[in-house]
Amino acid sequence: MIKVSVLYPNASDATFDMGYYLDRHMPMVRDLLGGVLKGMNVDHGLAGGQPGVAAPYIALAHLLFESVDAFQAVFDQHSGAILADVPNYTNTQPTVQISQVKL
Amino acid sequence: MIKVSVLYPNASDATFDMGYYLDRHMPMVRDLLGGVLKGMNVDHGLAGGQPGVAAPYIALAHLLFESVDAFQAVFDQHSGAILADVPNYTNTQPTVQISQVKL
Repeated sequence: MIKVSVLYPNASDATFDMGYYLDRHMPMVRDLLGGVLKGMNVDHGLAGGQPGVAAPYIALAHLLFESVDAFQAVFDQHSGAILADVPNYTNTQPTVQISQVKL
Repeated sequence: MIKVSVLYPNASDATFDMGYYLDRHMPMVRDLLGGVLKGMNVDHGLAGGQPGVAAPYIALAHLLFESVDAFQAVFDQHSGAILADVPNYTNTQPTVQISQVKL
């Protein structure tokens, strides 16, 4: 299984509408990706690892797929609609990480 | 539920012994944290979000706890042993993110 992590960097002027993200954006992503998407998880940043340190990321999404090829094929088809919706919930530019799930 | 994410930054000279991490470090963490730890997951970085872009993180661990207080109490007890083992598997300095699991 592979995981696509979408990491929204925190900053003093970073905005992120978690209500819109959970109620509108992620359901749209789920509908578009269909059965190729094997699981999804959304986290909201609370803090860094030391007292008083801000969370490095304001929000994180993790999406599971059988393989990188399976993800890329379905994302190529629907990336236009998905990426066009990003400015509706954040002013940040997400970092994307593709990983192999080991445990 | 809250998630503690430990993110090991990638770099051209970054080293990470995934075998040691999975077979020795994470089992030690699981034993030390006991029932306070509600789940764990380990990812190995493959790529970034664009063709030819390296993964931002060489490895990522995600640990679940009932609350930030529950995590901090048990981590305060065992952080010495856990952190002392880090140089045995990596030359990187991990970034820590504490998040609220929303979905």
